[in-house]
Amino acid sequence: MKLATPKGFRDFLPTDALKRKLALEKITKVFEKFGFDPLETPTLEYEETLAGKYGEEEKLIYKFETPGEDKVALRYDQTVPLARVVAQYGPNGAQTLPTPFKRYQIQSAYRGENTQKGRYREFLQCDVDIIGVSSLYADSEILAVIYEAYKALGLEVAIKVNDRSLLTDVEPKYLAAIDKLNKIGEEGVLKELEGKGLSNEDAAETLKKIQSLNLSEDLKRIMDIFNKEMVYADDILVFDSTMVRGLDYYTGLICEVVLKSDPNSSSLGGGGRWDKMIGKFTGNDLPAVGFAIGFDRTLEVLQEQGVSDILKTSTKVLVTVFSMELGQESLDVVQKLREAGVNAEAWLDAESKLDKQLKYADQKGIPFAVIIGPDEAEKREVTLKDLQNKTQEKLSLEQLIATLK
Amino acid sequence: MKLATPKGFRDFLPTDALKRKLALEKITKVFEKFGFDPLETPTLEYEETLAGKYGEEEKLIYKFETPGEDKVALRYDQTVPLARVVAQYGPNGAQTLPTPFKRYQIQSAYRGENTQKGRYREFLQCDVDIIGVSSLYADSEILAVIYEAYKALGLEVAIKVNDRSLLTDVEPKYLAAIDKLNKIGEEGVLKELEGKGLSNEDAAETLKKIQSLNLSEDLKRIMDIFNKEMVYADDILVFDSTMVRGLDYYTGLICEVVLKSDPNSSSLGGGGRWDKMIGKFTGNDLPAVGFAIGFDRTLEVLQEQGVSDILKTSTKVLVTVFSMELGQESLDVVQKLREAGVNAEAWLDAESKLDKQLKYADQKGIPFAVIIGPDEAEKREVTLKDLQNKTQEKLSLEQLIATLK
Repeated sequence: MKLATPKGFRDFLPTDALKRKLALEKITKVFEKFGFDPLETPTLEYEETLAGKYGEEEKLIYKFETPGEDKVALRYDQTVPLARVVAQYGPNGAQTLPTPFKRYQIQSAYRGENTQKGRYREFLQCDVDIIGVSSLYADSEILAVIYEAYKALGLEVAIKVNDRSLLTDVEPKYLAAIDKLNKIGEEGVLKELEGKGLSNEDAAETLKKIQSLNLSEDLKRIMDIFNKEMVYADDILVFDSTMVRGLDYYTGLICEVVLKSDPNSSSLGGGGRWDKMIGKFTGNDLPAVGFAIGFDRTLEVLQEQGVSDILKTSTKVLVTVFSMELGQESLDVVQKLREAGVNAEAWLDAESKLDKQLKYADQKGIPFAVIIGPDEAEKREVTLKDLQNKTQEKLSLEQLIATLK
Repeated sequence: MKLATPKGFRDFLPTDALKRKLALEKITKVFEKFGFDPLETPTLEYEETLAGKYGEEEKLIYKFETPGEDKVALRYDQTVPLARVVAQYGPNGAQTLPTPFKRYQIQSAYRGENTQKGRYREFLQCDVDIIGVSSLYADSEILAVIYEAYKALGLEVAIKVNDRSLLTDVEPKYLAAIDKLNKIGEEGVLKELEGKGLSNEDAAETLKKIQSLNLSEDLKRIMDIFNKEMVYADDILVFDSTMVRGLDYYTGLICEVVLKSDPNSSSLGGGGRWDKMIGKFTGNDLPAVGFAIGFDRTLEVLQEQGVSDILKTSTKVLVTVFSMELGQESLDVVQKLREAGVNAEAWLDAESKLDKQLKYADQKGIPFAVIIGPDEAEKREVTLKDLQNKTQEKLSLEQLIATLK
């Protein structure tokens, strides 16, 4: 039997899972500070819910039939399910959602990507969206909450902004080519445009036209609100007319987050205004603007930048067992520690050598170990070993709790 | 287009999603207090990883082929993926996991259940397992961590215990019938046993034999450790020889959690010892014991018992906008509140009537609203409305922050 996960699908062992958990807690805290509440949608949607929403990317959707003959598809992003939720329960639906609807959503997306390009087929997205507000204050607030979320993670980012309404006369397939400018350079883009049917001359003209676009009035206003009214530094938002985003569904602001120190590296997330999708479900458009943090890419960058939290375990102390006879003492101490709120692990086999127990603590990354031998038991003390600094001291139970808390 | 989720799959709108989040935080805290660390495995496994592990239930697995021709299946539980992980990275594998390996895992499982029985097809499980310890202290610790987890949620539970090694001479298909004793009564069980091929007489004898079983030596020891050494009340663990668990893979202790006040209601979760599964992957058995909290059922009971957290939103205050001219004042206040750690929402449209804004706060469940009209702006004050108690007061910004923190 193959001991492996399917290609593009990953396990997260404790050290990685903890890193992810800590980063998500920081992101969630910022989202909630801005008044966003959580939403969860199922892993499977009806295939027809996702059909016709993603343009050329639709071929990457995982589809299958359930035994009950439902045609279903795995979640491809969190925007289309959100649109379905708003259509189902929102202003034109069952009316149980407040409007504006500000939600965050942190779930996996699934795409049949080419894994040779280093892409994952299951990956986590952290989305925030505001539904039902056409005012440009909503666009600026999305930029603000995103900036704060990356900042909370320890990253100084810039946000490239552009306006899709400047690009309405360029065909989506050409936009997809221009979107690669950072990666493949001008020559590469021109070649791609030609590959998509433009003449040599038209390709050059299309690229040049886009490169020379000016700020739209809406974009000026969004940047004004962000810089002057919300008083963020004015080098965070950067207008980039060649940052055009791949997806079809944007209608106004589009944006991508990059490291401030490396603005040409690949983006850590993206978003924009998508005013026309909810109408595909209900017939009535509802304004919407949002952003998706690419969590995996962001975590990679955190690690590269050395600002990732490193916590091999959340366990603070291993309470060792000296002997069968002294097992009860160890159990009592571990329970007292837990009652005091200390994450404490009890060694569970009274017949293991102390060496083995300490080696385990070290391997798991537990910073402290408690030893209760006959001496300690008699004096009602414990020995606390600091496994990182290789020091130890004798303490009363009260002192132990105070030290570890 | 059908505005719906596939049958058995659910949305969690903010009020429900928050309830789930708060309950999960409590469970996670207890798991970590006992020294368990998180593990995540992918939504999809190779079909062959899951094959042959679940006995008769295997027919409920969702299977499909990916475009790259991989035969894959959706996660059916978290035990088999854990066994795969231990086989892949553990003592007989790549050796990056410490042993004992204590992990918790909180992810969705997917089963093609009959939804008419009120069952969901995507549901959350909260698992804790200890791998690599054959000592019965591990069994008792699993019972302790589970008891504490339900207690942290506000539920007083009893844990029915039994020992699969008492039942080795009963065929699994008969055990599945006996497992329903609580639901369908003795007559129902006898009928099922007969339906599975036993004569009237043999069915009666099989049931009677199981009903009259006595505590095994292992079970006595597990209960002794729990009651005497860990000093838990002695009415928590209850021996029930007819509680036999449906799944095939148990080898020793089996257990199910029920409400202490209603021990015959359906269980809130179950588990036991499963010493023979990792060997199916590696050829070398490795002892394992664990438990899965049925999160959805548990949440239902929390709600029935009235001990569920109710939090319609995590937003503490809506900062309203009185007029276009005073928008800046409102933006300043909302930013100060957020900096102070208060979850604060800004109304994003300067042209909305105050009534509309307050109605929104009420609908979303935000407990407070701040109003900054011309009077307040001039005196550098704000009006804080308590939307639940229908009171209001004028405060300085400092007082506002102190009140809401």
